[in-house]
Amino acid sequence: MSQAPNALQVPRPSLLFDLDGTLVDSVYQHVMAWQEALAGCGIALSVWRVHRRIGMSGGLFLSALQRETGLHLDRATLDELTRRHLEGYMQRAHGVVPLPGARELLGVLSAQRVPYAIATSGTLEVAGPALAMLDVPADVPVVTRDAVARAKPDPDLFLAAAQRLGTEPANAFVVGDSVWDLLAARRAGSLGIGLLSGGYGAEELQAAGAYRVYQDPADLLAHLEEVGVRP
Amino acid sequence: MSQAPNALQVPRPSLLFDLDGTLVDSVYQHVMAWQEALAGCGIALSVWRVHRRIGMSGGLFLSALQRETGLHLDRATLDELTRRHLEGYMQRAHGVVPLPGARELLGVLSAQRVPYAIATSGTLEVAGPALAMLDVPADVPVVTRDAVARAKPDPDLFLAAAQRLGTEPANAFVVGDSVWDLLAARRAGSLGIGLLSGGYGAEELQAAGAYRVYQDPADLLAHLEEVGVRP
Repeated sequence: MSQAPNALQVPRPSLLFDLDGTLVDSVYQHVMAWQEALAGCGIALSVWRVHRRIGMSGGLFLSALQRETGLHLDRATLDELTRRHLEGYMQRAHGVVPLPGARELLGVLSAQRVPYAIATSGTLEVAGPALAMLDVPADVPVVTRDAVARAKPDPDLFLAAAQRLGTEPANAFVVGDSVWDLLAARRAGSLGIGLLSGGYGAEELQAAGAYRVYQDPADLLAHLEEVGVRP
Repeated sequence: MSQAPNALQVPRPSLLFDLDGTLVDSVYQHVMAWQEALAGCGIALSVWRVHRRIGMSGGLFLSALQRETGLHLDRATLDELTRRHLEGYMQRAHGVVPLPGARELLGVLSAQRVPYAIATSGTLEVAGPALAMLDVPADVPVVTRDAVARAKPDPDLFLAAAQRLGTEPANAFVVGDSVWDLLAARRAGSLGIGLLSGGYGAEELQAAGAYRVYQDPADLLAHLEEVGVRP
């Protein structure tokens, strides 16, 4: 007789997705929009330094900016930067498309009844068009910057997303393209999956604690069994 | 009595610089120009994949593109892509500035009579304005794509630059922001110095063989003694 499997109840994982650079190919448009906003306010910051800050809270980005440039920016300038970034991003948004495999991945998760949510440091205004192009079903929880007190690398967005799914963060994988996602995942008590599609290198994502790194949503879809999703 | 130093003749190093992402902040403008050119020809390629190809020969970039997309592009399309990239880059070139410390670094090398040259996978048409904003003295050798049979990661550009300086490549450091610079440096027999200012992570540059990695020209300037340049 074969041995009976033991009675451990291991919950099936849920997935908590970042949006920009993870499901839609929008990071470089955000980078150029921020760089243009900064230059428009007379602030010189190398573009790679902007790139490495995408995905974190806009407020923390501006704090880091003040530290790195040694400038003190008043409230009016900070508001002006935020406004110019939004304007510059909207001008470039026509070039934003879903990342390869993003729609297919979400479709497979829906078909297999794997719970998932989306948690983004962006506002609903910016996230809306991206969500529309992904055909995200209306019952998928979406947590935007507007809904929490602190964005990434604080864990609030992912904690709220897990709560909306009715799951413990420890039973969820966070999927993101930036180190800020992976740091927030660790703060939340979730394992993090890194995607290269935001332009970070694999080693940077691993150093930030990624459990696994894939190229993009298509590559994650091709390896779903590695993160506990089985047909 | 103190010991006399021995009679070893260790040549002082020369420096062979890449241009885009190493001395001028132009990588992201090239990325967006290529992505726009590709989209204009109906070719979908994620932006991060374009980013990781910047700095290599345009011909090899297009070869890699055909492999990664599975497309076969005819001569007319390849010419069209090259033309559109140049046009898109020129539209964005007004936003290109020297990287922090670049002018100062070249000035210190000139003042200390450390031989240096510039070797770029770009054409003279694109490199000209960048060289002008760096105040590169007229006697500094500049080797562009037009001057050699094969660009990076082949070693030709750096070998030609070393030859123009009258030095052995083994006595030169290559300074670049991309893995293609560092791979070409190894082919040339030079040690490579990686800069983060093109948007690669430190670990990627180290994995490609970087002897040292600095943030940008200003950071290299602050650590010149680590690469054998002494006041």
